[in-house]
Amino acid sequence: MSADRPAPSPGPILVVNPNSSQSVTDGLSRALERFRVPGGPAIECLTIAEGPPGIITQRHVEEAGLRLADLAERRPDASAFVIACYSDPGIDLVRSVTAAPVYGIQEAGVLSALARADRIGVIAVAATSIPRHLRYLRRMGVESRLAGELALDGLSVAESGHGEAAFAQLADRGERLKALGAGAVVLGCAGMAAQRARLEKRLGLPVVDPTQAAVAMALGGILAAAA
Amino acid sequence: MSADRPAPSPGPILVVNPNSSQSVTDGLSRALERFRVPGGPAIECLTIAEGPPGIITQRHVEEAGLRLADLAERRPDASAFVIACYSDPGIDLVRSVTAAPVYGIQEAGVLSALARADRIGVIAVAATSIPRHLRYLRRMGVESRLAGELALDGLSVAESGHGEAAFAQLADRGERLKALGAGAVVLGCAGMAAQRARLEKRLGLPVVDPTQAAVAMALGGILAAAA
Amino acid sequence: MSADRPAPSPGPILVVNPNSSQSVTDGLSRALERFRVPGGPAIECLTIAEGPPGIITQRHVEEAGLRLADLAERRPDASAFVIACYSDPGIDLVRSVTAAPVYGIQEAGVLSALARADRIGVIAVAATSIPRHLRYLRRMGVESRLAGELALDGLSVAESGHGEAAFAQLADRGERLKALGAGAVVLGCAGMAAQRARLEKRLGLPVVDPTQAAVAMALGGILAAAA
Amino acid sequence: MSADRPAPSPGPILVVNPNSSQSVTDGLSRALERFRVPGGPAIECLTIAEGPPGIITQRHVEEAGLRLADLAERRPDASAFVIACYSDPGIDLVRSVTAAPVYGIQEAGVLSALARADRIGVIAVAATSIPRHLRYLRRMGVESRLAGELALDGLSVAESGHGEAAFAQLADRGERLKALGAGAVVLGCAGMAAQRARLEKRLGLPVVDPTQAAVAMALGGILAAAA
Amino acid sequence: MSADRPAPSPGPILVVNPNSSQSVTDGLSRALERFRVPGGPAIECLTIAEGPPGIITQRHVEEAGLRLADLAERRPDASAFVIACYSDPGIDLVRSVTAAPVYGIQEAGVLSALARADRIGVIAVAATSIPRHLRYLRRMGVESRLAGELALDGLSVAESGHGEAAFAQLADRGERLKALGAGAVVLGCAGMAAQRARLEKRLGLPVVDPTQAAVAMALGGILAAAA
Amino acid sequence: MSADRPAPSPGPILVVNPNSSQSVTDGLSRALERFRVPGGPAIECLTIAEGPPGIITQRHVEEAGLRLADLAERRPDASAFVIACYSDPGIDLVRSVTAAPVYGIQEAGVLSALARADRIGVIAVAATSIPRHLRYLRRMGVESRLAGELALDGLSVAESGHGEAAFAQLADRGERLKALGAGAVVLGCAGMAAQRARLEKRLGLPVVDPTQAAVAMALGGILAAAA
Repeated sequence: MSADRPAPSPGPILVVNPNSSQSVTDGLSRALERFRVPGGPAIECLTIAEGPPGIITQRHVEEAGLRLADLAERRPDASAFVIACYSDPGIDLVRSVTAAPVYGIQEAGVLSALARADRIGVIAVAATSIPRHLRYLRRMGVESRLAGELALDGLSVAESGHGEAAFAQLADRGERLKALGAGAVVLGCAGMAAQRARLEKRLGLPVVDPTQAAVAMALGGILAAAA
Repeated sequence: MSADRPAPSPGPILVVNPNSSQSVTDGLSRALERFRVPGGPAIECLTIAEGPPGIITQRHVEEAGLRLADLAERRPDASAFVIACYSDPGIDLVRSVTAAPVYGIQEAGVLSALARADRIGVIAVAATSIPRHLRYLRRMGVESRLAGELALDGLSVAESGHGEAAFAQLADRGERLKALGAGAVVLGCAGMAAQRARLEKRLGLPVVDPTQAAVAMALGGILAAAA
Repeated sequence: MSADRPAPSPGPILVVNPNSSQSVTDGLSRALERFRVPGGPAIECLTIAEGPPGIITQRHVEEAGLRLADLAERRPDASAFVIACYSDPGIDLVRSVTAAPVYGIQEAGVLSALARADRIGVIAVAATSIPRHLRYLRRMGVESRLAGELALDGLSVAESGHGEAAFAQLADRGERLKALGAGAVVLGCAGMAAQRARLEKRLGLPVVDPTQAAVAMALGGILAAAA
Repeated sequence: MSADRPAPSPGPILVVNPNSSQSVTDGLSRALERFRVPGGPAIECLTIAEGPPGIITQRHVEEAGLRLADLAERRPDASAFVIACYSDPGIDLVRSVTAAPVYGIQEAGVLSALARADRIGVIAVAATSIPRHLRYLRRMGVESRLAGELALDGLSVAESGHGEAAFAQLADRGERLKALGAGAVVLGCAGMAAQRARLEKRLGLPVVDPTQAAVAMALGGILAAAA
Repeated sequence: MSADRPAPSPGPILVVNPNSSQSVTDGLSRALERFRVPGGPAIECLTIAEGPPGIITQRHVEEAGLRLADLAERRPDASAFVIACYSDPGIDLVRSVTAAPVYGIQEAGVLSALARADRIGVIAVAATSIPRHLRYLRRMGVESRLAGELALDGLSVAESGHGEAAFAQLADRGERLKALGAGAVVLGCAGMAAQRARLEKRLGLPVVDPTQAAVAMALGGILAAAA
Repeated sequence: MSADRPAPSPGPILVVNPNSSQSVTDGLSRALERFRVPGGPAIECLTIAEGPPGIITQRHVEEAGLRLADLAERRPDASAFVIACYSDPGIDLVRSVTAAPVYGIQEAGVLSALARADRIGVIAVAATSIPRHLRYLRRMGVESRLAGELALDGLSVAESGHGEAAFAQLADRGERLKALGAGAVVLGCAGMAAQRARLEKRLGLPVVDPTQAAVAMALGGILAAAA
């Protein structure tokens, strides 16, 4: 398309929080405010109301995947989907039901961090998620670049996103990952964006919020298509 | 930073073409026009005038790296650097002389394609570059996700970016990569952006222009920092 | 437990066909007849009646996973579960809802073939499944031992399991995998067991039926527990 | 073969202990008692009388391999061979002299554990064996799934198989492997089967005896051939 | 040791041909003539008279290993051993019985070629050896750098080492490996040294004779020890 | 070439120290004294006078590469080049400007150590170099064989090469690498050769000086060419 004619308005980027917590979704939306650029796509942050309060169990993950696919089918207007849960629930499924690009935040967060540093670290909210994440990194074929993954202790998803206690744990885990050789750190959850900048400053390393990373990729694809 | 106050204007994203061809730089700039979003950073596309007409030899690559580092040192105002040559010349060096994020377009292009498909293909301008690219993918630790890399035949960088003859070759290589299992294709050169959309439509697969991918990542980082 | 007292009777091995085709389930049951050893566990082959006629799409895979988990929760008497679909639908989920061993037939078939030969080949029913299988092999971390995977052409799951036309294709694919270096061949579907022995004789290579392989592992675990 | 006619009686599974210790062989035989199913193959556990008391040195390993091959050549009646030493001595050689399936207990134990958990741990009898095992896992191409391997301290093969002192060490190593992320544990020796069930209960993880795992695979192959 | 006093004369490098063919050993000795440097160690090329005429079967490999270890034990005067058979028979065993360095020619040939080019090719004498070689490369952990391995057709080890017919096949295989991306070629047998220089000239690529490579490493170790 | 006529004298092996420290070069030359064999090539150790006192920063590395290429172009008489800096500066570049073999000491040192032991350790002079080395090992595709890399603390390149304080650190790091499973140790710098023999004796493991390893390979290639 020639650059001197306005592109038809692209459909929105749908950022879908598969848990039912509206406050988490509101946090996502705030973290993405700057990505709502004039002339660019809308960025809608959606809550799946029938989801569980948090995606904790493997059943939560699988059910979230189906709900995300249902939503994708109902929204042919979307120009991209972002699955805003670090387990990337339903990523293969959602890709199979829509022609629009589908970004999982674990994939996008990890791949974006790999563009910043040779070896990376991940901070998970809970230790129980780490085996799932490692399995996914092996599937991605990038585990040779993981310096380590460490979990917070005793915090919920919501609690991890703000407050001094959470920050202290994030800083501790970040320092330990740095000692293990991490040159960049990925926040391994959708709800930690508000801690990103402060943690980056503290560590002196790039800290990647995975939802922002996924939206940046989605936005880039849309801008490229309009070029 | 609170979202209701304007962020201080970020410095520009510098997209640096290490060859001396202004027409290539102009093409880059056109391909990035849509990424110049209101309120976002300027995107300056620079030519290194003392560079060679094209980055062909390994010496070109190495000299380009040093020139890129010199430029990075002269531009502390930049909020990000994009090395707009698919050999990612000087990526380690430039990272060592600036605190700003530095994106290589091979890294960014490949990593962005990996966010779209399980296995990817790459189209190089010339067969002689393929060993260098494969070596780099091994260093990146992602070679298990390469379906294949194929080269155009008898075209210069400039010629690869437009015209029916070039497109016919791109389509042929893309179809062959698809047959090898590629679910997305990376354009393995800075100068092919103008062919991207048409090729994507022809192949029915995501086609990633690596400079656009790198700028999307750079833009995302800046928007995240302002969030 | 001492060997001179009879072990308490173990619960059954549940072999669950997640598609609704009773004839496929009946074929599974026939292929497992010899595994019903005196004193050993019953081997129940179940059909998920509300499943689709075949597990074709990614949605089929994901929905099958949830149904399998539901069934697992309803059958605490089972001493092992075998997911009798080569996509191993719901394997992480079923494992999360039961303490009994859960075997996926892709995992069991591939791992059993790896106990017979250094490099293996897989015959898929349909080409569209191959990317899913390759992704799974990467997750398993064993892709360096795959000589190749080839698909039948134009046959349904049911058709692949009997008849000369299907056998001719199986033999052709097997010979090609052998030429690629495969020292054993895995039948990449739950429905091909009736072709196994003939194909093995034809190729002069071990041919592994994945459901039999999974049941052998499940049976072995039960016998070991009784030892 | 149709299921309504009795299969010709299959030849025995030969489980060969390459050391000269009859008591180890007797222990193997006890651990396999439940695998002697009515109508199934005999399971003969053999001692190689001219072998050393234990397979300790690399020379022991190599000589064991040749003796195992000699035995395999003398026993064309066997329907399968199990090499009951965790170094899998002579596995390539025995496979080259017989058309019957040949299972090494390290391969079978590891592969069976991989069917139960994403990452596994191994308990070796002696630290000196670990480099040999790791080299073998690399050859198998599965080292990315090893959480760790730890050795007992100061115990002979025979001592490792019973008694409180040995169990205490097994439990300690198992707990440490669990902390390293192992989801299943392989007993890295032919002589520990009698500790398996108790250790499994203690750890809350599947514990695989490798000889039982190999016999289960061998039995499965024979039952499949009779199906 | 100070450089101004003569070093005590080092023991010989023993290059052991495990087959009984004296003509092969004589060829090895000729190929190593230039490595017998004044002041350096003697290079003795030995034939194992009780070996088979060629190392063809896996049993040959294993028996060769034991004979090599016996020889190593009888020659404590040796300053290094070179196992001059591309299957590296007995490499673990010989290392276990002597404190002197032990070089396998496959390891040395491959590693030396990797010091010359990013990806390498191998020419085997017979197709039946290729699976064994590939398994060994996986154990070495370097298979990602193999461009390919191709076999000669219908030639014995002795025939491969001279003559136009053999050279024509070598040149053909070399050209095909080059087309596959090999930047250096390893002669995958102890008997091809006399063809090395001519093949290197023909291909325009480094061609590595593995016995020369192993002796160079052995010599280097001795010279370093004397430094 | 027939062995009974003297070969034309080969050109020298140029061992190039890219830093400006003549004392380092002198140390190299001493460590290579025994490699100057009668009838063999001269071994010239050169200092790049315009280089920095040490190769510390990434810019040092890159500039060194260009200077090494310049030197290579001025010395067509050389029969081989050895880049005597463990970062292997300019290895791709120098290879692109000369037809003579080019050896990097990191590559040669690591590959030579891999011919001695299954897993290896590396001792770096400074912790800041380790990420660069690890990245290079990943590019080499051999990282699965690294037991670990540890750095000295507070010593310059020059200081690392002699004295009790340096030796004490070397011995400590070597012992720790041995405990991590290293079966051979590489000195990760050009300046430590004088400590090699003593450290080897202390550790009871092969210790590889990388410059000696590279010169051994270069010498071997020249002797092979003369065979």
